[in-house]
Amino acid sequence: MRTLAILGSTGSIGRSALAVVDAHPSRLRVAALAAGDNAALLAEQAARYRPAMVALASDDAADRFRAAGGTAAELVCGSDGLVAVATHPEVDIVLCASSGTAALDAVLAAIEAGKTIALANKEVLVMAGALVTNAARRKGVPILPVDSEHNAIHQCLHGRPTSEIRRLILTASGGPFRDLTLEQLQAVGPDAALRHPTWQMGRKITIDSATLMNKGLEVIEAHWLFGVSGDCIDVVVHPQSIVHSMVELSDGSVLAQLGVTDMRLPIQYACSYPDRWDGALPRLDLAKAGRLEFHEPAHDRFPCLGLAYRALREGGTAPVVLNAANEVAVASFLEGRLGFTSIPLVIERALNEHQAESVLTLELIRRVDAWARERAATLAARPEGGQLNTAR
Amino acid sequence: MRTLAILGSTGSIGRSALAVVDAHPSRLRVAALAAGDNAALLAEQAARYRPAMVALASDDAADRFRAAGGTAAELVCGSDGLVAVATHPEVDIVLCASSGTAALDAVLAAIEAGKTIALANKEVLVMAGALVTNAARRKGVPILPVDSEHNAIHQCLHGRPTSEIRRLILTASGGPFRDLTLEQLQAVGPDAALRHPTWQMGRKITIDSATLMNKGLEVIEAHWLFGVSGDCIDVVVHPQSIVHSMVELSDGSVLAQLGVTDMRLPIQYACSYPDRWDGALPRLDLAKAGRLEFHEPAHDRFPCLGLAYRALREGGTAPVVLNAANEVAVASFLEGRLGFTSIPLVIERALNEHQAESVLTLELIRRVDAWARERAATLAARPEGGQLNTAR
Repeated sequence: MRTLAILGSTGSIGRSALAVVDAHPSRLRVAALAAGDNAALLAEQAARYRPAMVALASDDAADRFRAAGGTAAELVCGSDGLVAVATHPEVDIVLCASSGTAALDAVLAAIEAGKTIALANKEVLVMAGALVTNAARRKGVPILPVDSEHNAIHQCLHGRPTSEIRRLILTASGGPFRDLTLEQLQAVGPDAALRHPTWQMGRKITIDSATLMNKGLEVIEAHWLFGVSGDCIDVVVHPQSIVHSMVELSDGSVLAQLGVTDMRLPIQYACSYPDRWDGALPRLDLAKAGRLEFHEPAHDRFPCLGLAYRALREGGTAPVVLNAANEVAVASFLEGRLGFTSIPLVIERALNEHQAESVLTLELIRRVDAWARERAATLAARPEGGQLNTAR
Repeated sequence: MRTLAILGSTGSIGRSALAVVDAHPSRLRVAALAAGDNAALLAEQAARYRPAMVALASDDAADRFRAAGGTAAELVCGSDGLVAVATHPEVDIVLCASSGTAALDAVLAAIEAGKTIALANKEVLVMAGALVTNAARRKGVPILPVDSEHNAIHQCLHGRPTSEIRRLILTASGGPFRDLTLEQLQAVGPDAALRHPTWQMGRKITIDSATLMNKGLEVIEAHWLFGVSGDCIDVVVHPQSIVHSMVELSDGSVLAQLGVTDMRLPIQYACSYPDRWDGALPRLDLAKAGRLEFHEPAHDRFPCLGLAYRALREGGTAPVVLNAANEVAVASFLEGRLGFTSIPLVIERALNEHQAESVLTLELIRRVDAWARERAATLAARPEGGQLNTAR
């Protein structure tokens, strides 16, 4: 029996994780749940899974949790709540599925407490990849990726040494706009961008998928997870999202992981690793799928991808700026205050104004994050003029 | 430095193996070479690789070897030659690439001598899978598959236990006739059948590829190599031959191995295993390949595949009959004496007339093989009449 803490239990990944628990009641038990603001759903989850601890982002949410009849042996609030859930003594595996930067402290605390990390949060590695992976190495704690792409690579590698990796190949659906011209992209609004062709996800990640920034963040994550430089991480557009990613090995052989687009598969993999459990998951029927297509990403129309490679090359704090500026720009776009093609403009300007610092501490990361958000907000208010450098 | 014996050094696989040796002069050395009748090429190979021993199928071929200026410390002839090469004391790895049934004794002798087997000969496992795999298990000798499909599965499994396998999925190019109607298939002659769309191979295997018998033999091989029953081995037609085969694991995840269609890749894999060497092999460019297609095999038009499943289900000596009858029928087809669609007819009649015996000895295998060849020759002389059972 493995016990699980879920950071972000009311989100899409969190709910899929609870479905995995439902499918394996003799193998998985929920020990602690953390949610942000969705007190009503957390109350339902607490009634069903009876965790020893629940956490919510605010006192107000905690009040609503109690009002909805929610009960738990321990209820904690605020940013300390995530850390308390992530380090709860009963917990073996911490599934980090809360979006944004709030999870960073919790993941570092969980690593210090020797918990296995199942990581579904991109920002943790994008912002603090060196800190997090060094801590995990020092403590001997595995970081198991839940993102379908990195999970696929983890499955393909299956313990093969880094020296056998020639290239990681991340697949990208290409997003809903992969066939639009630059002119058409300029006219795109939030509603169209939120209709993703193959994956059902949250709003922010869906926009990131449309700009290819999502893939850019994944390139940075892949660098930290697998110790491979950006030069050896490629992106290929694969609209069917059936091949979840690939590894080219040193002899030229390519290994790929394929499956249906269902997040329960990578979540279960991370919870069961190094074992593999039979699951009641839908099976892939390739003959029914019929055709898999692959093509190069269009860097000229989707410059966010190139910006992520640039930030990875610059290293140090540059990905912090990339991530923060992107969050602000996407929020502005979702509020209808920024054009789709201006998102990369804002990010590039912020990167241009930043001098990357190589020594990474949490304090430095927070300072740079705050600076980049403020600059991006100002830039997003008037992004016009100037050319983007679209070269990767 | 690993030393290599090549059974069938003048054939397509043998020549590719020598190209792998050329690419890794500090890692691989040729200790012994065996050929059938191509004395001139063997003489060239002996001059270049200076093996301690060479073997040819007949005294006549040996005379021609000497006449061509061929020299070697030891020259052996006849069926003893294959065994002598396969058990040469300097040899670490025996690459069995001689076609047909002649290699069976040599492989069993090599296993007894503790050599690692790199297996590119289908008949060895189709005829004597139980004998060969039991012997290898008893001696702790690895059998590394060189066939691109089984090699792909070996790479996907990477030591994963059989309990994690839900299904093996062998890919098939579908052969040159995959889109022909039954009427068109009846009119097919040897020349058309010898034009394979993606792989350059010998004549017999090219016809087997056109009838899908090649894939049927591979289903039987996969059963013996990976310990999976025929019910859990599927075939999917994949005309591009880029995905070399796949494994569905117990949780529904599918792993695939992809690569260019170049036999040097699986040969090098078998020679380097468990290491993996950088190779000067062409790289796969998926975006350039563009599209991968998959569909169900047409059992009604290609009944040989179903006959192979039937022989595997019947077990014991049934695959011996399948293999022998197929060899005779294909030879008749290549000589223009048998129609393409009569190949499965001959094989089915031979299977119908055979009562499978479950105790497998080499002597029994030879007796059944001889009987099936004789029966098939008679049946091939007048295959008309009677319906084939095309159900798998």
